[in-house]
Amino acid sequence: MTDYQHAQEYFLKIAQIDHAITYLQWDQLVMMPPGGSDGRAAAIAELSAMRHDMLCAEDLQEAVENASNNNDPEMTRNLAEMQRQIRNATCLPASLVKAQSLAGSKCEHGWRQQRIDNDWQSFLVNFEEVVKLAREEAQLRYSTAQQPLASPYDALLDLYCTGDSSELIAEIFATLKKELPVIIETVLDKQTEETVKLTGTYPIDEQKRLNRALMEKLEFDFQQGRLDVSSHPFSTGTRGDHRITTRFRTEEFFEALMATAHETGHASYEAGLPEKWDNLPIGSARNMSIHESQSLLFEKQIFLSRPFFNSFTETIHQFLPQTKTFSADQLRDVCCRVDPSYIRVEADEVTYPLHVILRFEIEKDLINGKAAAKDVPELWDDKMRKYLGLSTAGNDRDGCLQDIHWTDGSFGYFPSYTLGALNAAQLFAAIKQQNPDWQEHLAEGNITFIRDWLQKKIWSVASSMDSQDILEQATGEKTNAEAFLRHLKNRYVA
Amino acid sequence: MTDYQHAQEYFLKIAQIDHAITYLQWDQLVMMPPGGSDGRAAAIAELSAMRHDMLCAEDLQEAVENASNNNDPEMTRNLAEMQRQIRNATCLPASLVKAQSLAGSKCEHGWRQQRIDNDWQSFLVNFEEVVKLAREEAQLRYSTAQQPLASPYDALLDLYCTGDSSELIAEIFATLKKELPVIIETVLDKQTEETVKLTGTYPIDEQKRLNRALMEKLEFDFQQGRLDVSSHPFSTGTRGDHRITTRFRTEEFFEALMATAHETGHASYEAGLPEKWDNLPIGSARNMSIHESQSLLFEKQIFLSRPFFNSFTETIHQFLPQTKTFSADQLRDVCCRVDPSYIRVEADEVTYPLHVILRFEIEKDLINGKAAAKDVPELWDDKMRKYLGLSTAGNDRDGCLQDIHWTDGSFGYFPSYTLGALNAAQLFAAIKQQNPDWQEHLAEGNITFIRDWLQKKIWSVASSMDSQDILEQATGEKTNAEAFLRHLKNRYVA
Repeated sequence: MTDYQHAQEYFLKIAQIDHAITYLQWDQLVMMPPGGSDGRAAAIAELSAMRHDMLCAEDLQEAVENASNNNDPEMTRNLAEMQRQIRNATCLPASLVKAQSLAGSKCEHGWRQQRIDNDWQSFLVNFEEVVKLAREEAQLRYSTAQQPLASPYDALLDLYCTGDSSELIAEIFATLKKELPVIIETVLDKQTEETVKLTGTYPIDEQKRLNRALMEKLEFDFQQGRLDVSSHPFSTGTRGDHRITTRFRTEEFFEALMATAHETGHASYEAGLPEKWDNLPIGSARNMSIHESQSLLFEKQIFLSRPFFNSFTETIHQFLPQTKTFSADQLRDVCCRVDPSYIRVEADEVTYPLHVILRFEIEKDLINGKAAAKDVPELWDDKMRKYLGLSTAGNDRDGCLQDIHWTDGSFGYFPSYTLGALNAAQLFAAIKQQNPDWQEHLAEGNITFIRDWLQKKIWSVASSMDSQDILEQATGEKTNAEAFLRHLKNRYVA
Repeated sequence: MTDYQHAQEYFLKIAQIDHAITYLQWDQLVMMPPGGSDGRAAAIAELSAMRHDMLCAEDLQEAVENASNNNDPEMTRNLAEMQRQIRNATCLPASLVKAQSLAGSKCEHGWRQQRIDNDWQSFLVNFEEVVKLAREEAQLRYSTAQQPLASPYDALLDLYCTGDSSELIAEIFATLKKELPVIIETVLDKQTEETVKLTGTYPIDEQKRLNRALMEKLEFDFQQGRLDVSSHPFSTGTRGDHRITTRFRTEEFFEALMATAHETGHASYEAGLPEKWDNLPIGSARNMSIHESQSLLFEKQIFLSRPFFNSFTETIHQFLPQTKTFSADQLRDVCCRVDPSYIRVEADEVTYPLHVILRFEIEKDLINGKAAAKDVPELWDDKMRKYLGLSTAGNDRDGCLQDIHWTDGSFGYFPSYTLGALNAAQLFAAIKQQNPDWQEHLAEGNITFIRDWLQKKIWSVASSMDSQDILEQATGEKTNAEAFLRHLKNRYVA
């Protein structure tokens, strides 16, 4: 067996453990009765430890190093991705990983009640420890990074937005900070009339059928996947078995539909990864900025496009006959309402980036030591007033206590939401340019031309290129705000 | 760390892998879309290999041996069970395990069509290899057994009916062979009138609610378990998360109810195992003869008892109003019809043991080299004519091709079905004797007194005693046919 084969065998085994963790976690969120919590947590922890031990095995590291002396670009790329995973696993001492796990669990657990109680002071006690440990983690990742990074925060960013630097992000976000307030003001002036009110009751069973119908339109393959219900929509899976979830409320049906379109985008990316690279690092989805671009492309660019939405309205009318009194335009307006508000997850696509920019700026300073955990509420209020004209002073429940991400130390994740939105607009602009008859296709509810394009430009590329190189080969440009701003102006201002 | 603690740590890790395999297999049978097959098979195979490697680790064997010099009876027992598991894992060479896995998959795969085609000759080609390898396995297990065994077949029997020897079984089966034909003849003479015909349509959703109601009566805890649907009912799970399945048909509802009662018995045993021994060999369910006694006790002894069935009829009438025209006795008669037939899984409880005895006699001779694979159809026909008065000559589809068990070499499993039925009757007789007011409790649909008794006598004992010792401490006798025959006479002849 060659060194390369030896390394590949390791990653194949790691992939089998990941398979187990994937579906055990899905089960935990979708199927498991409450009594299973402790046993499941212990099993996943054990499998994660096994996975970690494998990544840290000395003979794996030796095999990867020995194999790196070759002239095969695909092999070289795969080895580089292997090395990145090994470095990410080995650069932190077990004591830090354990301390982070404990501090994260404690902070997250406390947060669930502290958020309800608007109790920042109690949260802060746990959160200070989380921040302290995250700084240690960032420093260690920063000092062991293969490529020099601009700051410790960049080392955390690299876990989620792999390849997208804080410098690139800051530059893009500066443009958004300048342009979005102008757009928002124009939209709010223009958007005078109220949308129609959905006052009906929409039975869950009918909604389930409607959501499945949407997935079929979006070419989800139910022979290779499922739709289920969970308290927060998500997408997961492996080759041949992609699972998405949504959530239903009887008084409203668009939240479920949008989540379903969104998660179908995530699942389509995973399903489109090249089979030849299954279970190898080179074959993984690139990063969260690209992943989120696929989900937002399906949700915001396809589903909410006027021609596709028009064609799908017939299906909405069919499954939910109560909606027949409303036209396609009236229904679409309900989904395209702009309204500056406190809560990120409820924000419209125009104001959403400002929620993310605020978090990016605060977490960057937190990790790089330029802000302290105790200052977060004041920073939050200050930025909310500046960016969205809303104050969260004394209202941390709807301010800095609203998200789960920071409670377990997941700093560096937030930017991927907005990078994803920008990438989605940029990719869709390229698709439209290369498919002059795009409107006719969408008006027929046909998205095959989009899937084929994404398959070629994004899905089949997997991790064989860096994120910004993927964007560039697909659209001619690195991630930038232009297509996104044009999209917003077209949809909300024109 | 002591040697004993070291060994315990190993088994804790093995239990975490078992946890993963348990729910991955559940998912495979209940949730997984077809596209997931290959990936799931590969993941389970990898986890099984890891489990096997752990059981075969030299330092585990050393730790268990070093720890065995102690005066603690519980520790001694646990170490003995550890040693049994280690011996079972290490006594077969990897080459044989692999050959068996391949031959078993091939034979089972072919069988699915060959059974439909009534094609014994094609089946035989694969089956001869399965038998040859099973004989090798039996010989190896026989020659490495800790206690001397009567025959190679006993070594396979010990995997499922651990502690129940072929000699004990043959003795019990001899009694059944003598007594059952007499009972059957009497019942068939007496059982003249037809039962009522269930000709309604019974909606699945209503049946689901009815089955959940039955599980609640049987004190299944839905905070610690689930009911789902699969093509063959089964039960699985770990501490805090017990999952059973049933299957529904709209034209009939008793099959689902009986399966639900049956699987609830299995799940109750697992849930009742002592928490202090979680993840240790001493804490496992004893063997399949005891396991099946719990499921059959719930299905045949409790659910089909006249007082419980009477009390539950109100619930049947409530969820399936079409049944209101039938009395409790009329409905119960539908479930208590005796009718000698070809198919084991469809057999009533009076004729069922004869199906098992036939298989036991044939598989014992097959493994001990006293019969050849090619002789099976003739042996089957011969015994079917003798025991049940039915010929399967030329009809192997309804004869020796009907079961899946032998196709992958699971010889030694069948006796547990009938040992379970006998144990169930014997345990229930003891419960009735010690609870003179048992009829009043059951007439109120209250089975707490039964669960409490089983908890104390069977569930809490787990694997801390041998199977026949468990029976003896609970009922005063080793497994025998007496209580079962008395039960049949009471229910079907009296």
